[in-house]
Amino acid sequence: MNAVPLEPLLLQNERKIVLLVLDGLGDLSHPDRQWKTPLEVAATPNLDAIAPVSAQGRLLPVAPGITPGSGPGHLGLFGYDPATTPVGRGVLEALGAGLSLAPGDVAARANFCTLDARGIVTDRRAGRIPTETCGRLVASLRAGLGRIEDVEVIVEPGKGHRFVVLLRGPGLTGGVSDADPHHEGSAIPPVRPLMPEAAKTARVVEALVTRAAQLLKNESPANGVLMRGVSGRPNLPGFRERFGLRAAAIAAYPMYRGVAQLAGMAVVEVAGETPGDAFRAAAGCWKEFDFFFLHVKGTDMAGEDGNFDAKVAVIETVDRALPDLLKLQPDVLCITGDHSTPVLMKQHSWHPVPALIRGPWCGADHAPRFHEKAARIGSLGTIESRHLMTLLLANAGRLDKFGA
Amino acid sequence: MNAVPLEPLLLQNERKIVLLVLDGLGDLSHPDRQWKTPLEVAATPNLDAIAPVSAQGRLLPVAPGITPGSGPGHLGLFGYDPATTPVGRGVLEALGAGLSLAPGDVAARANFCTLDARGIVTDRRAGRIPTETCGRLVASLRAGLGRIEDVEVIVEPGKGHRFVVLLRGPGLTGGVSDADPHHEGSAIPPVRPLMPEAAKTARVVEALVTRAAQLLKNESPANGVLMRGVSGRPNLPGFRERFGLRAAAIAAYPMYRGVAQLAGMAVVEVAGETPGDAFRAAAGCWKEFDFFFLHVKGTDMAGEDGNFDAKVAVIETVDRALPDLLKLQPDVLCITGDHSTPVLMKQHSWHPVPALIRGPWCGADHAPRFHEKAARIGSLGTIESRHLMTLLLANAGRLDKFGA
Repeated sequence: MNAVPLEPLLLQNERKIVLLVLDGLGDLSHPDRQWKTPLEVAATPNLDAIAPVSAQGRLLPVAPGITPGSGPGHLGLFGYDPATTPVGRGVLEALGAGLSLAPGDVAARANFCTLDARGIVTDRRAGRIPTETCGRLVASLRAGLGRIEDVEVIVEPGKGHRFVVLLRGPGLTGGVSDADPHHEGSAIPPVRPLMPEAAKTARVVEALVTRAAQLLKNESPANGVLMRGVSGRPNLPGFRERFGLRAAAIAAYPMYRGVAQLAGMAVVEVAGETPGDAFRAAAGCWKEFDFFFLHVKGTDMAGEDGNFDAKVAVIETVDRALPDLLKLQPDVLCITGDHSTPVLMKQHSWHPVPALIRGPWCGADHAPRFHEKAARIGSLGTIESRHLMTLLLANAGRLDKFGA
Repeated sequence: MNAVPLEPLLLQNERKIVLLVLDGLGDLSHPDRQWKTPLEVAATPNLDAIAPVSAQGRLLPVAPGITPGSGPGHLGLFGYDPATTPVGRGVLEALGAGLSLAPGDVAARANFCTLDARGIVTDRRAGRIPTETCGRLVASLRAGLGRIEDVEVIVEPGKGHRFVVLLRGPGLTGGVSDADPHHEGSAIPPVRPLMPEAAKTARVVEALVTRAAQLLKNESPANGVLMRGVSGRPNLPGFRERFGLRAAAIAAYPMYRGVAQLAGMAVVEVAGETPGDAFRAAAGCWKEFDFFFLHVKGTDMAGEDGNFDAKVAVIETVDRALPDLLKLQPDVLCITGDHSTPVLMKQHSWHPVPALIRGPWCGADHAPRFHEKAARIGSLGTIESRHLMTLLLANAGRLDKFGA
C-alpha cells in the first residue's frame, strides 16, 4: 500500500490521543486454559464497559510471519515502516541500556569473548561469564580505554557477556563491517568501512578492539572484545513534523523511552512501573501534550516467563487503574501491544496484536469484550502497525480529506 | 501489495460487468438507531435475495485513516492507486464544475478575494460573496479576459467565492506555484514554474491574475483573484488498454462523469438522477458496452446532511429499482461505494466501505443481508479499492492464469 503524505492533511485542534501499549499483549489460545488467552481469562470490568462502543482490529507489526524486536515493534506503532526505517542494532541496544544518543553518536553491540594465544576466537561468549564479571570488566575498559583519536568511548555493561559501546566525536557514522568473525575458530576480522565516509569509524572500532584485548590480556576466560551492528543514531522526522503533535512518552524502561525519543517525543518522568504510575504521570502533564504514549512492560515479561497467571494479573492491574486514565477524558484512546508474546512460546512472536480504538467516530463494534477473538472480526480489520497513527489522527479529527 | 500487470492476462468474452456505486455508502452504527447503520435499517428485499449467494467484503479507498475526496475515491474503484495517480486539485474541480478537459488542458481552482490599495490580500474569500455575485463576476472575467498569449481562458463559476479556470493552448502543463499567499496580510506571490517546461503556464497564470485584478478594480469586496492547484489533465491509461473493456459511465453529476472520462469511459446520457434512471440508461446501451459504471449520489448527500432516514430512503429506492438492473442479467454485479459518509460525521470518512460481488464464481457467503457488519466477516476480506477491478475481471472470466 502506498502511503499518502500526511503533512498536507494535518489539522490542529485540542483533541488528545492516548496510545496505551501493553508490551507483548497478543497471545494464543492456551490448551490448559480451555483454549483461552490471557485477555479472555482476565477479569476486566472497565475494559468491558468501553469495548461495545469501541472499534477493534489487529495490528501486524511488520509483515506476516515476522517477529519484531521491541525496536521495530514500537517504530511501527509510531508510524514508521519498521522494514525500511534504519535504526541499527547497536542503537537499539544502547537505548535499551539507558544511554542517551545525541545526533552524530554511533553505537555498537559488544561481547566479551575468549581469544587464544594466536588471537583466534575460541569462545564468542567467553563461557557466558556472569553479569557481575561483565560489570568488573567494563570498569577496566572505562579506566583504560581513554579517547581514541578525538572520540569519546562510552561503555555500558549488559547481561552476561554483553555490553554496549557508544562512540561520540566528529565524523563518525554507521556502515562498517563487524569486528566479529561470527563463528569460533577464526581471528577477529579487520574492520572495513562499507562506504567511504565510514573510514574514521572503522579505524576507531579497530583500535578499540585492539586496545581492549591489551587491557584484558591477563583476564580469563574473557580476554577479548567483539563488536557488531555499528550504527549511527538516525535522524527520524518526529511526531511534531509528521503528525503535528506534541508527544509525551511515559515508560519505565529505557528501551521504550529511547525509541520514543528517536521518534521526537518528550520523555516524561514516571515514579514507577505500574499502570497507575503511568496514568498519574499522564495526568501530571495532561495540558502540555496532544499525544501520550504509555508503556506497560509487565505483559511481555509474563509472556516471556511463560506465566499465564502473571500475564492475566498484569492485564487486571491495567484494568483496575483504567478509570484514572478515562477520568482524563482522552478524545481518542487506543489500547494495543507492540507485538505478541504468547505464554506458550515464552518469546516474542509474529502473531497479529489485538487493538482497540475508542473515539467519537470510531464506530461501535458491539463486541462484549476486548480480546484476540473479538479483534479478529472487528471493524478495523487487520492492518499494519505503521498505519495506526493515521487512524488515530483521523479519529481525533486531525486529518483533512485527501483530494477533492 | 505489488500489483501484477493485467494486460498480459486479459481475456475477451461476452460477459458484462456492472459496478453500481452508491456514493458515500459506508456508515457507522448509530447510537440513536439501536447501533445500526442505514444499510441495516433499510428494507431491502431485493438485495436480501441476492446477498446469500454473493460475496461480501470491504474496500479501503486509499489507506487506513485516509479520508478520500470523490476523485481519489473513484480512482481507486477504477483500478488506479489514488495515492500515486497524479490527478490535480484543479483538474478535479474543473470536472466537478462540468468542464470537459481535452489532452493538454490545464485547470486551476480559483477564488475571488479582497485586495487593499497596495495589493495585499485582506480577505482570501472576499467576505464569502453570494453565488449570484460569483456568477456576475465570472461574466465580467469572460467578457474582459480574452486570450492570454495564444491561450484560451475558460472560467466557470462555483459556489460562493469559488470558481474554476481552464487554460487551453499549446505548451501548457501543471507544476507552477500557487497565485495565492494562503493567508491574509501578504501580496499574491509571483507565480513560479516548478519545472522548466512550466514556464509558459506560470507566465499565463501570472498575467491572468494581473488582468483579473484590473477588470475587477472597481468591485467590492471581490476585487482580486487567487489561483491554486494548477494541474494538467493527466493521460491515464484507460479501461480499454488496461482491462480490455468497453466501459460506459452513467452518472447524473459532472464530477463522476469527468473522472470516468479520465479513466477512458464513454459517458452515456441519463435522464435523471434516480437509480431507475441509471438502470434505464444502462438498458439503453446494454449491447454496446462490457462494463457499466452506475453512480447514485443520494446516499452521500444524505450522509453529508446527517440525515439517517434520507440515507435509508435512498438505499430503499435503489433496492426497489434493482429488479430492472437484474433483468439485464449482468454476469458480474458489484454494489459498493467510493468511500463512507457516516450520518454521525456529516462528511466523508476513512472507514472501509462494504462491497458485494455477485457472479458465477463469487462464492456464496450465506450472509442473510448486505451491510457493514456482514461485509466485515465476508469472504472478500478488506482490500484496497484499487484491487476491485481485478476481482471483477476475474469474476467475469476475463483474466487468465498468472504464470504456468
